[in-house]
Amino acid sequence: MRTSIATVSLSGSLTEKLTAAARAGFDGVELFENDLLASPLTPEEIRARTADLGLSIDLYQPMRDIEAVAEEEFARGLRRARHKFELMRRLGADTVLVCSSVSPLAVDDDALAAEQLRRLAVLAEDFGVRVAYEALAWGRHVSTYDHAWSIVEAAGHPALGTCLDSFHILARGSDPKRIEDIPGEKIFFLQLADAPLMAMDVLQWSRHYRCFPGQGGFDLSGLLAHVLRAGYRGPLSLEVFNDVFRQAEAGPTAVDARRSLLVLQEATRPLLRQAAGLAAPPAPVVPTGVAFAELVTPDVVPVATVLGALGFTRTARHRGKPVDLWQQGEARVLVNTGPAARRDGTALAAIGLESPDPAAAARRAEALLAPVLPRRRALGDAPLDAVAAPDGTELFFCASLGPSGPSERGGFSGRPELPHWTGDFERVERAPQVEHVEHVEHVEHVEHVEHVEHVEHVEDVERVELVGHVERIGPVGKVPGVGAVTRIDHLALTQPWHQFDEAALFHRTVLGLSGQESVDVADPYGLHRSRAVTNADGSVRIALGVGPAPSDDGARAQHIALATDDVTEAARRFRAAGGRLLAIPANYYDDLAARYGLGDEELATYRELGILYDRDQNGEFRHCYTQTVGRVFFELVQRDGGYRGYGARNAPVRLAAQRAAGRPGR
Amino acid sequence: MRTSIATVSLSGSLTEKLTAAARAGFDGVELFENDLLASPLTPEEIRARTADLGLSIDLYQPMRDIEAVAEEEFARGLRRARHKFELMRRLGADTVLVCSSVSPLAVDDDALAAEQLRRLAVLAEDFGVRVAYEALAWGRHVSTYDHAWSIVEAAGHPALGTCLDSFHILARGSDPKRIEDIPGEKIFFLQLADAPLMAMDVLQWSRHYRCFPGQGGFDLSGLLAHVLRAGYRGPLSLEVFNDVFRQAEAGPTAVDARRSLLVLQEATRPLLRQAAGLAAPPAPVVPTGVAFAELVTPDVVPVATVLGALGFTRTARHRGKPVDLWQQGEARVLVNTGPAARRDGTALAAIGLESPDPAAAARRAEALLAPVLPRRRALGDAPLDAVAAPDGTELFFCASLGPSGPSERGGFSGRPELPHWTGDFERVERAPQVEHVEHVEHVEHVEHVEHVEHVEHVEDVERVELVGHVERIGPVGKVPGVGAVTRIDHLALTQPWHQFDEAALFHRTVLGLSGQESVDVADPYGLHRSRAVTNADGSVRIALGVGPAPSDDGARAQHIALATDDVTEAARRFRAAGGRLLAIPANYYDDLAARYGLGDEELATYRELGILYDRDQNGEFRHCYTQTVGRVFFELVQRDGGYRGYGARNAPVRLAAQRAAGRPGR
Repeated sequence: MRTSIATVSLSGSLTEKLTAAARAGFDGVELFENDLLASPLTPEEIRARTADLGLSIDLYQPMRDIEAVAEEEFARGLRRARHKFELMRRLGADTVLVCSSVSPLAVDDDALAAEQLRRLAVLAEDFGVRVAYEALAWGRHVSTYDHAWSIVEAAGHPALGTCLDSFHILARGSDPKRIEDIPGEKIFFLQLADAPLMAMDVLQWSRHYRCFPGQGGFDLSGLLAHVLRAGYRGPLSLEVFNDVFRQAEAGPTAVDARRSLLVLQEATRPLLRQAAGLAAPPAPVVPTGVAFAELVTPDVVPVATVLGALGFTRTARHRGKPVDLWQQGEARVLVNTGPAARRDGTALAAIGLESPDPAAAARRAEALLAPVLPRRRALGDAPLDAVAAPDGTELFFCASLGPSGPSERGGFSGRPELPHWTGDFERVERAPQVEHVEHVEHVEHVEHVEHVEHVEHVEDVERVELVGHVERIGPVGKVPGVGAVTRIDHLALTQPWHQFDEAALFHRTVLGLSGQESVDVADPYGLHRSRAVTNADGSVRIALGVGPAPSDDGARAQHIALATDDVTEAARRFRAAGGRLLAIPANYYDDLAARYGLGDEELATYRELGILYDRDQNGEFRHCYTQTVGRVFFELVQRDGGYRGYGARNAPVRLAAQRAAGRPGR
Repeated sequence: MRTSIATVSLSGSLTEKLTAAARAGFDGVELFENDLLASPLTPEEIRARTADLGLSIDLYQPMRDIEAVAEEEFARGLRRARHKFELMRRLGADTVLVCSSVSPLAVDDDALAAEQLRRLAVLAEDFGVRVAYEALAWGRHVSTYDHAWSIVEAAGHPALGTCLDSFHILARGSDPKRIEDIPGEKIFFLQLADAPLMAMDVLQWSRHYRCFPGQGGFDLSGLLAHVLRAGYRGPLSLEVFNDVFRQAEAGPTAVDARRSLLVLQEATRPLLRQAAGLAAPPAPVVPTGVAFAELVTPDVVPVATVLGALGFTRTARHRGKPVDLWQQGEARVLVNTGPAARRDGTALAAIGLESPDPAAAARRAEALLAPVLPRRRALGDAPLDAVAAPDGTELFFCASLGPSGPSERGGFSGRPELPHWTGDFERVERAPQVEHVEHVEHVEHVEHVEHVEHVEHVEDVERVELVGHVERIGPVGKVPGVGAVTRIDHLALTQPWHQFDEAALFHRTVLGLSGQESVDVADPYGLHRSRAVTNADGSVRIALGVGPAPSDDGARAQHIALATDDVTEAARRFRAAGGRLLAIPANYYDDLAARYGLGDEELATYRELGILYDRDQNGEFRHCYTQTVGRVFFELVQRDGGYRGYGARNAPVRLAAQRAAGRPGR
């Protein structure tokens, strides 16, 4: 079906809005009157611009407060309408939206409304215009879609039909099933908008909180099914008033918008295969695990120090790029010191997702408008499909499968018919261990350092260049053997504040993950909102957060949460290896004591190590945090008994502690 | 009465919150549990810190979900309570807030609730603690203040009383009159919060939209009168959950908060003179006119060009500072090129307000915590009382009175017993007019330029320094004689987004102006909110606006609206003098034609000049805009028939046009 978007849904000048809509692949637009008024383009220029962009003007809107008034008032309305019909002729727009009146001058008289709308349609017909009458949820006398339809039916004019708007229908709690009683050809237009389920004044709700399908709580695929069963074959058009979108850039918003329509059509397709032209993207390919998390850093030492203290071992190095693989259990972290790392310090740049079918996963992502990344194929590199998430994080679709380590030939076991990212890595040979070095006067060249037990004093460390690889030798600290980490529990990505809904929709629909509930937590400096997406067995968990202060976008923190069966043991080992844990205020533990029946010894341990505690109806959660490196920190988490959350109620304490530690804690 | 504020109302760490509360002059705080948990300070250290700051901990809060549950559950609650009572002893806090239960475990049994609360009070008494039981508006079984009081009364224990919260009472629509039936000594605590009147879920409303008294729609002085009549003499305490305050700096928020309490006490005082200790600031001294608007600029030429084209004449210069006075009718604009101008380009820095009693006005302002500015008394300068508004705009209280120009001795007529700001200005002598200069090869030194009719071509202009005054000679353009401006209609100040409510409260209470309704307008780039404050006869009007994007604060635009009896004439003269008017899209006028019965000729004129049109039930409004200089532009406005607004519905078109013109249009 054709897709369309109301210009009011996008930010910027009319030209910017049209360009964004066209680039995102929309077929048409609803031209919102205020955008026309504010535009320096003449109607003819707007017509030419939209045509050049391959867009049609599917609707001109809105015309207000026309019907069910005294004759003199109606005559004024007709005069206004004639102006607008002339304007529409210049624009090449053939359908106008007429909203049910909110005027105090309107009377509760359906027959009068029908008669006046019929006269409006007679005038419209002269201009080749169709009138689509819509019930506003807050209309003075007409506020439900079936009421609006009964008036249209009574008017009985071919140039008069109805416009359905999902928000007005669902916000009022109307049963959308009766839509099927309307003849499809009398549904002149369909406007789609979702909204979070809120108990508030419906006008304010509509004007500020509408969102794209799938981002709110309405059953839009159910509604669309009814509309299609009624026989509607016009465009699917998004009309979304949203305070956030008004301030965001039009381009990404338009992509977010069209993705929502693609997914909506997908959801509706099984219901109504007979409806012609219902495009659907390739089916989702749900990831089955986290292959790796990739950190980029301009300075490998702090990252190596923390990973080492966490018990990770550098097991392999990329053949041609400055990328190391660190492993522990099933947790794999790539550390990339290549050119990308120069930009903005240590950051979580990419996530490798295990996929049953990487190519199909990439096709799905591309069909849902995710930017496809160049495969970065170097000499001998495995071609990896990758796309960018809205926040810029790169998502790689991998097929390494399984936890096995590097094989003898330097690759991983897995599915031999698929290219392996691990095929590009070579196993790091263990260097001979040096038990004790009393004093090193000068280091000229170091080929490889596997393991340093203890460094007493480092005077003046030089940077050493290896072939094709920048390696720094610094005060690496203590790097012990294997720790208590079993795998990556989740990855936490802080989103730019205006992209939170887009990110949630992206991860759910592009990756086929399920969204968990959105959680708001008040931290001392603002509201902290978060929402996780996960696969069925919890082996892939991505926690999306949005920090409170819009201006803080530049300092967005990300973190890698590592699963352990014993967070106390993991924390102790980390600390014994020289790692620094985030200190949690003692007051927090006094409260834990009051709140839960935890033993004194257990509490003392948590207090000592900075372990936080949470509990839900399913189980328990214990977690602690490392110091922050660049924009990244690590969390050690222990889940017991089916706990599903992420310790959100501890977030304010954690954030305050990170602030106190002078780190960019969000 | 003592004033107190809940730490949750302020942003930052506990230390920052306490410091801000103390600096703003509060006597105590409600310590919010989460702030304690997140603080690295021990309870003893918090006690010492508050004491050092001269603050008491008036309330510890909240304790939740205690009452009306099964015995086993209540035993757990008592165990938690014991922990908290011990904590309170360490803190030196003697009153704890207990909220009515929201737990699904609670049963609807007032007798059980009373009995368990009595047992809680017995335990509390052992620790010297008083329990203040409060009805949450969304409490599971107890949601009204009188219901909570009936339970407290039934429990009948001296350590158990009730806590009243204005939000919970007024949001539920309860009649506050029955508060007078509660014995004053059983009202253990009073929490005050205002809120905008909204139809939404009361929990969300409470958690995100509370504001300080006078910033919302509740009748808080009415409620306070009932509480005082009941005999309550405890602290007036602010408990405000607000998403904006969470992100703002604690210092200004605390000042805003305490100002709201001072004004609330003022409003309540006439009702209850017998209530001891009700402080009240000096009465407001409402300004009677605008003495001047002061622009600061590092480059006088563009400002002089626009003022000249608008018909202003430079009539006087300050004796010792680089400040010029430009006049037209009753409109006076000071142009200051002194050191303050260097900071951030051309800006509206100060407003001179005509005051019947400048000293009293300043005393009022100071009592309401407005920062008093140094009087900038230089050799022979009149001492002017001045304060800073929350956005930094300086407000001078003047007593020049009347529209008369500079007198023979360089001053203005007015009230001779008061110092005049105009006394520091000297009349500018008209320089001999040069009819025509064919060609100027080089300008070595210019002492003074009064009036330039036309400049054909300027090749290479040098900067010329005069004694104590920077004057630039540039392409000054055409500067004609007197225009059509009669006075300053209003001053429009764009506020930092988080200070909008504070600014409105400030101007209303400090200056004694009346607030008009808040108006939200969607502009293409976001929501534009505005609210005007005005005196009774409209001779002082200040329009406060908040731009949509929080990050745009740096580019906040301000403007001076100049009244004229004939905007068409004024616009024509401006343009004839070489001034550039903001171009308004033709589409706007097509819509005007459709909307109103304006004549073709009238419309053609508006279209030609970029004049905007609005109408309300009282009259008509015609206005147009000059180009922007730095952060400042001018508006020419014509009000007819008692129109009270500011053309808000035209703001999106104006803002889009300013953006199109590449100006910082907000």
